[in-house]
Amino acid sequence: MASFAERLRKRAGRLSRAQRQLAEFILQNEPRAAFMTAARLGAAVGVSESTVVRFAIALGYSGYPELQRDLQDQLRARLSAADRLVLAEERGERAETILDTVLRTDMDNIRATLASLPRDRFAEAVSALQRARAIYVVGHRSAAALAHYLGYYLQLMLRNARTLTHAGTALEELMAAGPADVVVAVTFPRYARATAEAFRLAARRGARTVLITDSVVSPLVEDAAIVLPARSESPSFADSLVAPLSVINALITAVALAQPEKVRAALRELEDLWDRQGTYLKEERRSDRIVGPGEAGGDAGS
Amino acid sequence: MASFAERLRKRAGRLSRAQRQLAEFILQNEPRAAFMTAARLGAAVGVSESTVVRFAIALGYSGYPELQRDLQDQLRARLSAADRLVLAEERGERAETILDTVLRTDMDNIRATLASLPRDRFAEAVSALQRARAIYVVGHRSAAALAHYLGYYLQLMLRNARTLTHAGTALEELMAAGPADVVVAVTFPRYARATAEAFRLAARRGARTVLITDSVVSPLVEDAAIVLPARSESPSFADSLVAPLSVINALITAVALAQPEKVRAALRELEDLWDRQGTYLKEERRSDRIVGPGEAGGDAGS
Amino acid sequence: MASFAERLRKRAGRLSRAQRQLAEFILQNEPRAAFMTAARLGAAVGVSESTVVRFAIALGYSGYPELQRDLQDQLRARLSAADRLVLAEERGERAETILDTVLRTDMDNIRATLASLPRDRFAEAVSALQRARAIYVVGHRSAAALAHYLGYYLQLMLRNARTLTHAGTALEELMAAGPADVVVAVTFPRYARATAEAFRLAARRGARTVLITDSVVSPLVEDAAIVLPARSESPSFADSLVAPLSVINALITAVALAQPEKVRAALRELEDLWDRQGTYLKEERRSDRIVGPGEAGGDAGS
Amino acid sequence: MASFAERLRKRAGRLSRAQRQLAEFILQNEPRAAFMTAARLGAAVGVSESTVVRFAIALGYSGYPELQRDLQDQLRARLSAADRLVLAEERGERAETILDTVLRTDMDNIRATLASLPRDRFAEAVSALQRARAIYVVGHRSAAALAHYLGYYLQLMLRNARTLTHAGTALEELMAAGPADVVVAVTFPRYARATAEAFRLAARRGARTVLITDSVVSPLVEDAAIVLPARSESPSFADSLVAPLSVINALITAVALAQPEKVRAALRELEDLWDRQGTYLKEERRSDRIVGPGEAGGDAGS
Repeated sequence: MASFAERLRKRAGRLSRAQRQLAEFILQNEPRAAFMTAARLGAAVGVSESTVVRFAIALGYSGYPELQRDLQDQLRARLSAADRLVLAEERGERAETILDTVLRTDMDNIRATLASLPRDRFAEAVSALQRARAIYVVGHRSAAALAHYLGYYLQLMLRNARTLTHAGTALEELMAAGPADVVVAVTFPRYARATAEAFRLAARRGARTVLITDSVVSPLVEDAAIVLPARSESPSFADSLVAPLSVINALITAVALAQPEKVRAALRELEDLWDRQGTYLKEERRSDRIVGPGEAGGDAGS
Repeated sequence: MASFAERLRKRAGRLSRAQRQLAEFILQNEPRAAFMTAARLGAAVGVSESTVVRFAIALGYSGYPELQRDLQDQLRARLSAADRLVLAEERGERAETILDTVLRTDMDNIRATLASLPRDRFAEAVSALQRARAIYVVGHRSAAALAHYLGYYLQLMLRNARTLTHAGTALEELMAAGPADVVVAVTFPRYARATAEAFRLAARRGARTVLITDSVVSPLVEDAAIVLPARSESPSFADSLVAPLSVINALITAVALAQPEKVRAALRELEDLWDRQGTYLKEERRSDRIVGPGEAGGDAGS
Repeated sequence: MASFAERLRKRAGRLSRAQRQLAEFILQNEPRAAFMTAARLGAAVGVSESTVVRFAIALGYSGYPELQRDLQDQLRARLSAADRLVLAEERGERAETILDTVLRTDMDNIRATLASLPRDRFAEAVSALQRARAIYVVGHRSAAALAHYLGYYLQLMLRNARTLTHAGTALEELMAAGPADVVVAVTFPRYARATAEAFRLAARRGARTVLITDSVVSPLVEDAAIVLPARSESPSFADSLVAPLSVINALITAVALAQPEKVRAALRELEDLWDRQGTYLKEERRSDRIVGPGEAGGDAGS
Repeated sequence: MASFAERLRKRAGRLSRAQRQLAEFILQNEPRAAFMTAARLGAAVGVSESTVVRFAIALGYSGYPELQRDLQDQLRARLSAADRLVLAEERGERAETILDTVLRTDMDNIRATLASLPRDRFAEAVSALQRARAIYVVGHRSAAALAHYLGYYLQLMLRNARTLTHAGTALEELMAAGPADVVVAVTFPRYARATAEAFRLAARRGARTVLITDSVVSPLVEDAAIVLPARSESPSFADSLVAPLSVINALITAVALAQPEKVRAALRELEDLWDRQGTYLKEERRSDRIVGPGEAGGDAGS
């Protein structure tokens, strides 16, 4: 799981001259190099495509595509939104095709997440949420949306959850957290500092920490007891939170199914409330009977 | 796009006796019938599987799967969360496999959305957002998360967006909306009444209304100028907002790429702000140079 | 504490003819009558000023001023904001003098509150807050401001408070409340329905209910275990929350002084946090020494 | 309006030996000295009470009380909440008397505000709000309550107000502000840094800045076009926002009365909405008729 730079450092003494040229080129042409094919990269440096591939393998990658994805990931974590918008324009994204590009990328994100998310970590997270005295869900900026969603359902089902998306007071709220509690953070590149600070505070107070993030090398990983990685790649200027939301869906469902009686009782009590309040639109009762020819009138419905 | 009940009503006079029995059975055994295979349904009524298939076709469906999906969709829109949790248990969903089930369903949701979302409506929505005097994004309950996300990015890029997720004051805020403005509502089964009321008010005030919802037969459709349907099927007790979030990603990206200079300028100004405020974690500058053996010291980096 | 209408009803059989004429006139000229002097009222009905005064006393008031204030209070609770704005205009309020009128009225509000707020109820409220398992503070619309303020400080000091100002989800949050908990509602004319519903739910769930409102005849009183009345009279189109805020100040201070070690420890922990975060402006350290003539050097201070 | 330290610095060369001893003592015993009487202070330094009084006058104060208040004010702005709680305990504040102490202090705060708030600044603020293209109201931490209150009413009346109380995104929102807009900040000791930063940004962007704060030497004054000072003294560990709220009441009322037709029309439209929504409790129509003796039966009222 080491990054390109770390791999280089470890192997620096054992690289061939051509390989060192490749490494220098990549580091010096960073935004652009991350998007070049093996052939174009070789041509730029004056080496063959197969030298490029061997270089990737020498660094411990499975091949050039894995090296390239690693470069792109690290780039993404550092690029500004404006830079990424420029890249999207350069890649020729157009309004007409953007719907297809984005939705396809999001399907890939879910597929990659399904392939890599450790099932035992997921089960641990479910179990931690079930047993928590109190649950705090932290997320800021765009990730506040996911924190809201997760906190909303956990509070409906378990009644001991708080959503902390207000940068001004999240830390104060966490002063009440301790070893019996679970703190979930949702954070994706470029990682809001407020979330990192809250998560660190939670870890220091001994709370059980669950991290929903883009990869196991996310900067918040060191404060996490349980990491749930979800792929957030995007052709756009902002990371995609689609696969993370799907993981959160699964988390909510698994928590519900792990203690169905309790959750069902909680939901039923809420249904009564929602009925009385008219919270949801009542479907007009459609005519539930078929009236055949000759059968008199009677639409019993609506 | 007519529902099962409407199709029945239109063809009531032309159904065979076996077909009418099938119809009666489905309506009277509604939660269960929607999840029966054609074979089981036939057996229950005492007709052959092929009679069931012909019944579906007689109602104008492409086959039994489409009829079944239609029944399930309509059911989903009316079932309580507790009922849906019971169904999930009955389907044998277990915590161990729920991650796979949920993520696969979400991939299917995106795929189905990609297949059916009208490209011209999407382009119209992008164009409406670009030209709006002010943009209001409405969403309540779980859909508030998506409204937050969309409103957050539109405000960063265009600086004329308001997110209305507070049921107590959304209507008051909309009193300022008029024909020059765009109101986007995000709503999924079981459709929060507060969102429906806000959207209706927006329509009455002459605002251009964009609806992100699960289908073109969503109850809010009549107040919508532009409908963007996104599939929200879920094996769980709550609809999935994953495909809708992917569509919102695409919408944000398309708005950005439709006027890249303006959005880039806005984002750059924000980047300066974020730099000064330390809003995001700065990646430590990794050593960007490779030091070969014998080359003198100098980690120029971090 | 009975209202004008109730007093009338009880004494209806014992009123003189002149008194019944006065009563009829008041009820039929309600917005205007509430603002007439005893003399003008007498003249309008064709009776003497002293008949008007005796009428007030016959109804159990201490005199005409108390009757008049009662009429105005009840009016205020029912008038729309627009009606009240008209009244303010009619009274000749002008922008130039409004500052004086409003601030003087608010001093009177505090003075009247000081004279009438039962000290034993206040002490009970303090004690209930101290002993609560969890505290919920409910307020909607303009009173949401006071709920925020009270909830903010209770959470800082006691770490078990939640502020419920979001009409869409306050009831759901209260589903977790029970007999060990305290629910505080803040409500003033015209009394938000959402607050009344939340308070009723809290009472039904057996929570200890504390009501901060304008009078002991506020419509929420029946669901309150402890009522803290604070005067909210205003020359403007909205009730004044100034005296209520002063009572809330006192409540916060009394809770702190009732268990100073605990609160001090909580605040000190927060101070460390605030120092590290730079939450508050640090006063530049001014030069704390006086340098006389001839004395060397001079730290000129920042 | 110079502070004690500045006054000392200016007159340092002209102070007598006894006066310099007094000055040194005050600076070195700062928390305590600010609460000593002139007699006790003299005794502590070994000078007469009248020397203390002359010292105050030599520094340009009207007498010792003004000097003492100045010391206390400056102290208040720097003391932590925990320190202030200690002081309150030392002053012998007890739960039983705290209601009286707090409410009386708040009356004094309003009285002092009434005496010192410049009427022309108030009129300027009203006029600026009336003419604003958009209004932003900023407040954080406890002052967020007042910002909410002001923003809530301005938005109801004028429909162009935004309340910025979310530290994480207030600055981003202000990127849309310019010379045609008004930015109001509400801040009191110890002055939230987030408010100061937002107000500075507003000033730099050329917005018209209105500051509601405790004094004309508040640290945000330099970024303010219009300062509305309101006294926030408190016997408690937190400044009192009661007088500021009264000033805000006056501001709201004055804005309404400055353009009554427009505001009345806006409020009437809202009343219709509130009626339809049942936003406020409808007073049960009490029996509006008096039933005299002999009159049958009767409408027993609600």
